[in-house]
Amino acid sequence: MLKICFSQFEVEPGHPDLNFSKMLQAINEAKQNHADIIIFPEMVIPGYLLGDTWEQTSYLKDCLAYGDDIIAQSDDICIIFGNIAVDWNKKNTDGRVRKYNALYAAYQGKLIQPEKSPYPFAIKTLFPNYREFDDSRYFFSLQNLATEMNKPVEELLSPMKVNIKGQEFNLGCILCEDGWSDDYNFSPIDILCQNYKLDMLVNISASPYTFGKNNKRHRVFSKQAKDNNVPLVYVNNIGIQNNGKTIYTFDGSSTVYDADGNIIACCAAYTEKNTYVELSAAKSYPALPVPQNDDIANIYQALCYGIKKFLHDIRMKKVIIGISGGIDSAVASALYAHVIGKENVTLINMPSKFNSETTKGLSSQLAHNLGCHYAIVPIQEVVDFTVNQFEQTQVENLSTQEINHVKVSSFVKENIQARDRSARILAGMAAAIGGGFTCNANKAETTVGYSTLYGDQSGFLAALADLWKYQVYDLARYLNKEVYKREVIPQGIIDIVPSAELSAEQDVDAGKGDPIKYPYHDFLFRSFVESWQKVTPEDILIWYSEGTLEEHLGCEQGLAKKYFPTAKEFIADLERWWNLFTGMAVAKRIQAPPILAVSRRAYGFDHRESQNGAYYTRAYKQLKAKLLGESA
Amino acid sequence: MLKICFSQFEVEPGHPDLNFSKMLQAINEAKQNHADIIIFPEMVIPGYLLGDTWEQTSYLKDCLAYGDDIIAQSDDICIIFGNIAVDWNKKNTDGRVRKYNALYAAYQGKLIQPEKSPYPFAIKTLFPNYREFDDSRYFFSLQNLATEMNKPVEELLSPMKVNIKGQEFNLGCILCEDGWSDDYNFSPIDILCQNYKLDMLVNISASPYTFGKNNKRHRVFSKQAKDNNVPLVYVNNIGIQNNGKTIYTFDGSSTVYDADGNIIACCAAYTEKNTYVELSAAKSYPALPVPQNDDIANIYQALCYGIKKFLHDIRMKKVIIGISGGIDSAVASALYAHVIGKENVTLINMPSKFNSETTKGLSSQLAHNLGCHYAIVPIQEVVDFTVNQFEQTQVENLSTQEINHVKVSSFVKENIQARDRSARILAGMAAAIGGGFTCNANKAETTVGYSTLYGDQSGFLAALADLWKYQVYDLARYLNKEVYKREVIPQGIIDIVPSAELSAEQDVDAGKGDPIKYPYHDFLFRSFVESWQKVTPEDILIWYSEGTLEEHLGCEQGLAKKYFPTAKEFIADLERWWNLFTGMAVAKRIQAPPILAVSRRAYGFDHRESQNGAYYTRAYKQLKAKLLGESA
Repeated sequence: MLKICFSQFEVEPGHPDLNFSKMLQAINEAKQNHADIIIFPEMVIPGYLLGDTWEQTSYLKDCLAYGDDIIAQSDDICIIFGNIAVDWNKKNTDGRVRKYNALYAAYQGKLIQPEKSPYPFAIKTLFPNYREFDDSRYFFSLQNLATEMNKPVEELLSPMKVNIKGQEFNLGCILCEDGWSDDYNFSPIDILCQNYKLDMLVNISASPYTFGKNNKRHRVFSKQAKDNNVPLVYVNNIGIQNNGKTIYTFDGSSTVYDADGNIIACCAAYTEKNTYVELSAAKSYPALPVPQNDDIANIYQALCYGIKKFLHDIRMKKVIIGISGGIDSAVASALYAHVIGKENVTLINMPSKFNSETTKGLSSQLAHNLGCHYAIVPIQEVVDFTVNQFEQTQVENLSTQEINHVKVSSFVKENIQARDRSARILAGMAAAIGGGFTCNANKAETTVGYSTLYGDQSGFLAALADLWKYQVYDLARYLNKEVYKREVIPQGIIDIVPSAELSAEQDVDAGKGDPIKYPYHDFLFRSFVESWQKVTPEDILIWYSEGTLEEHLGCEQGLAKKYFPTAKEFIADLERWWNLFTGMAVAKRIQAPPILAVSRRAYGFDHRESQNGAYYTRAYKQLKAKLLGESA
Repeated sequence: MLKICFSQFEVEPGHPDLNFSKMLQAINEAKQNHADIIIFPEMVIPGYLLGDTWEQTSYLKDCLAYGDDIIAQSDDICIIFGNIAVDWNKKNTDGRVRKYNALYAAYQGKLIQPEKSPYPFAIKTLFPNYREFDDSRYFFSLQNLATEMNKPVEELLSPMKVNIKGQEFNLGCILCEDGWSDDYNFSPIDILCQNYKLDMLVNISASPYTFGKNNKRHRVFSKQAKDNNVPLVYVNNIGIQNNGKTIYTFDGSSTVYDADGNIIACCAAYTEKNTYVELSAAKSYPALPVPQNDDIANIYQALCYGIKKFLHDIRMKKVIIGISGGIDSAVASALYAHVIGKENVTLINMPSKFNSETTKGLSSQLAHNLGCHYAIVPIQEVVDFTVNQFEQTQVENLSTQEINHVKVSSFVKENIQARDRSARILAGMAAAIGGGFTCNANKAETTVGYSTLYGDQSGFLAALADLWKYQVYDLARYLNKEVYKREVIPQGIIDIVPSAELSAEQDVDAGKGDPIKYPYHDFLFRSFVESWQKVTPEDILIWYSEGTLEEHLGCEQGLAKKYFPTAKEFIADLERWWNLFTGMAVAKRIQAPPILAVSRRAYGFDHRESQNGAYYTRAYKQLKAKLLGESA
């Protein structure tokens, strides 16, 4: 019987020293609990999302040195952990030193070599080349190595044998993507299980949270255990890691499946903990229910953990939030107040002459409900001064000596207000109190750039920018009902029409608000960015002409017809947003704050984009002409 | 004898319709000139740097449809061009449809199939997985295909045979990186040349400009032609393409090498042009000199082309530049005025009480020298108003009813000034005139975030942010001497100490300026970001202790000692900047404008980074303790 400790570890990316110290503690605890094996996640020493830090030789050496010190701890416990591995005599195809994403297993101070591997560690075989992942940029896969050695990968993939208490255990050790082989032309697990009699599969991972992903993981991994009749231990890290623009939470949710595919142990999401399980042919644990994780509570948990950890990592204790009386800033306020404490949150309402008594009242009510710090800082004087200063300014053409004056249009005035709020007041006040100010943008706004650069588009973190507007509303209701258990976000904020209130046209009291019709556009925009094969106006127009649009988008039936009675109106709306999504919104996203990712496609490093302007395919133009009764 | 047209084409990424129309023109011209073959660059129809547009099925189909129409034009001319190729029955490892980066050769309306290929096109074999490249994310390589088919790549790599005027020609066709195989374990060119008698090598490329790269390319490609005794035609596109954050110019510089490795034809950089050359065993052209491209003139050319094309692509005609009397904004002004015309450039000086008469005078002089539009828009009133407004604001703790006031420190006031200039004045004025405002940051400032977010860190484009300060000075002298042939940038601006003039401490008349000592820090910072194996404080400290620091950095001898007489001072300086480089500066770069890349490592998508905070290796800490005479 083998006592296994799986260590759901909070990895500090880029800080091997901290990870090393914490690993020592976890190992000592496991030793005291007489565990035979302790298993840490993938890349537990260096971290996983490090950008080009992988090109620093000194960093590689440092990680290897700490790895050696961990190996030295394996006197009476088998330690399995992920780390970088380096072959200083070989090169990657970029000409830099050869690096492997490796799994080390050490026992009695020595590394265990997989039977057929040329190295004393297991090498990640399959590399994710999608979403936020960049493995191919830095590492050499076992597949690459097999090709280099002119061997089929089957001849390298082999288990690690460890002799514990006089008994030999055959461990099939893989890393993360190796267990997600559906789209590859071979499966590392199948190869291992077909060629060897294994006692256990071990999958060490650094797998970021994505809404709903664990449901799929349970299906896939449970089947792997059952099909191969072997227990599977999945150890994932917690923590946050980022690619600069996009911040991922890692939820852990480490799980042990028995040989029947039942969950027999699992670790709560976002909890750092050693968990122990005894594996033997005889002993069997009761099957646990499959955790569900596809509701707003799950997203809420990811946001809370992500915000808290990010603030901790950047050493920010105080936060300023500009509140407008709208839903996004209200949800941000309730969220931050809960995560870092109301005493660390300052809410600032910044009215102009266009802000209604309604929204000013709702802002005040929100602030009072939450019990945060609260201030009102009006913008009208500086906005008026600015418009006046611009119009008075003499712009001289120094070639002709002609004097010109600029004219400030209504649209330009709108953006002056937005920038005055964020760049003058929020940024200044945040600096004065020694904190940061939040960006409260949602994903619908972010998609089409319905925001002002250096205005409401700015902030140190866009915590809600991976949530569609309907999810922001869901979160508002969840915060009131489940978190605070009282109406902290006034119902009036949930009910009011969303509006920027930057001009007399955007009068909330007259029900005039954003040009975005969220019940439809949330889903239209989602198809642009989150569909596996990305949707473009061509697809939309085909579905529209077939009458299957709402079905494809997943929104309420009949919405297109309701908002856009004619094909001409429908197409004008479609092109309006597509032009923005692929035009000005890209320029804005380039300069947008980091986004906390929760969806299966977040802006930033996950959804990579170029500023190339809008494009319409030939097939789109033909179908459009047909629908409009014109010639293409 | 074969008359070859190589078409150095200006590719519009993301706009197959435009590329198609222009290709038709180029083909017609080649037909009129009785060319036998016309060769276009890699990915000439779709463009190359497109981000996740590759995931749009409709876009793929559109590119293939335009490709078919090009193929139909090959009645009496062989057309070689790059495009995406799709196998709808297979998948990439991300589960999306199988995509190849392909070279098509069509003649008499039909595609020519490489002898041993399963497809009627040649497939890119080697994928760059470094710098700005992302091929592995989207495409399946010939190497991957060979592995999938359980064959060595040699069995798929084969030439294309075309029968023109009754004579058979064997063309070895490769794509871009296939010709840069030094760091791979095989060379596609060697395989082709060893297994077949070729009449010509064709390398179609989409190869971005990098300072000095063409020198290496001439060495490598000339050797390939000579070693294999076969002419090589290298066809590269021009244009700009971007990954959002980083904008690349493509210089073309297409070249034909004869079988002796001599350059016999080449096309000027950044020029769209069909060039003709007749290749036969008999005829030989005189060898042309190898073009040099490693001076500031070369960078100047890249910047001019990049700025002009970027402005054209985003349809921006007018530009506003905030000028301080310092070198960066002066160079930006002279550059933009030259590129888009002084009549489209408005220079704005925005003095506060800290700006000296010296710099105000130099600003005015610069504007007059250039003959641009010019205005003075002071910031002091709004800055004072803001500080006063903040300090008067009642911040109420709604839990305790306590009223607090913020205190605005001198440092906070500095940033208020910077944001007032950019977010209030420049952004507003730019919107009012219907243009954009520039970010004038250089690479040294960008490295350590010596700038204010939403202040001087902002703008629509950071055209100089890939130039070290010394290169900005080189460019200033070049603009005066070679471009304008008069002193448009006043010598006073070149001579004055660089300073932000944001406080009484930064008095230029007293010679007080930036904390960055450019003659040393330019080179220190360069080592952090541009070294092939990235340099960290550990490397710096080793070189410092060995006395080889300046030699390694490439700066003037003795500078470290001059600026930092003691090890303690040296280390404090090193850590100060390393902390910023890996800390706050990362946060700032995430929200920085797109950068026009010229160096071999530009910030953004080329130098990928995570916001993980500063890190010092164990070896660094030990060496530091030793140098300071402390225990680690």
